[in-house]
Amino acid sequence: MNRKVFLFIATSLDGYIAQPNDNLDFLSMVEQEGEDYGYSEFVKTVDTVIVGRRTYDKVLSMGVDFPYADKDVYIITRTPRPDEGHVKFYTGELKHLIETLKSTKGKNIFCDGGAEIVNELLRNDLVEEFIISIIPIFVGDGTKLFKDGRPEQRLDLISVKQFDKGLAQLHYRRPN
Amino acid sequence: MNRKVFLFIATSLDGYIAQPNDNLDFLSMVEQEGEDYGYSEFVKTVDTVIVGRRTYDKVLSMGVDFPYADKDVYIITRTPRPDEGHVKFYTGELKHLIETLKSTKGKNIFCDGGAEIVNELLRNDLVEEFIISIIPIFVGDGTKLFKDGRPEQRLDLISVKQFDKGLAQLHYRRPN
Repeated sequence: MNRKVFLFIATSLDGYIAQPNDNLDFLSMVEQEGEDYGYSEFVKTVDTVIVGRRTYDKVLSMGVDFPYADKDVYIITRTPRPDEGHVKFYTGELKHLIETLKSTKGKNIFCDGGAEIVNELLRNDLVEEFIISIIPIFVGDGTKLFKDGRPEQRLDLISVKQFDKGLAQLHYRRPN
Repeated sequence: MNRKVFLFIATSLDGYIAQPNDNLDFLSMVEQEGEDYGYSEFVKTVDTVIVGRRTYDKVLSMGVDFPYADKDVYIITRTPRPDEGHVKFYTGELKHLIETLKSTKGKNIFCDGGAEIVNELLRNDLVEEFIISIIPIFVGDGTKLFKDGRPEQRLDLISVKQFDKGLAQLHYRRPN
């Protein structure tokens, strides 16, 4: 079985992954004790995480340790930095990184955002599965998940799920 | 029971209601004999339809009669035109039209697009229910359903439905 690249991401109904100033407060409206919307099960299936540099710095700025201590983490950046333990800074072509990872054995690969990395992956048709959680809110402004100027890509809908707090989760797979 | 304003609309997974040049060909990928995704049942609950002028002209340019012969139709435009039977051209404020309609008795009110009208309604918090059909495709470019610069609006998720051709239909209601 080949390694696949997964996008597992939350967006507002109007298509934003963040409000202005990278504000993520709207995500808290679906917080519910004992409900992680499949995240922990999903994360078990991956051993490699790819994150954009802005998103990485945003997480660190929140005063928490970057997660995924047991996984290979690649931060996509234009500015080289020395590796920090399991976290590597990658300045090459994203397409080349994905191809290299896929040519080696391993579990799945998780793109954890942000929008710039997601769109670069989509422009190069590098994502096999999409698990998109839709938060029941129009946030009105901010960072759109999908930017103009990507190729057309048809998808297979695998499942839809409805959760108590109003989150709708859509799972799509790229046809073979 | 008060009249409500409904949005019943289809969008690609990446949030476009049309590809460049108002191309709607991607909608055909979910066409299936005997399946109208709830449209005919929905349309029975409305007696008034509001459509933007660009969308109206687009429909006519396709060489078909404008539908909704048994309903009051308001075309929202900046340029006055004489009424055409049940089709009225409205050049006033959209907010005022909706308020006037809601102050009279009748069935529900259906906003049938396009994006400009939808966003004007959302900017004024004038839509009560949203039935959004997500077509399983990234179209990559075109006319986004949701534009920047709207107010934040939380919603209640009523239902999610999955259809054979990969369409996912999400039904939301504005909280009271």
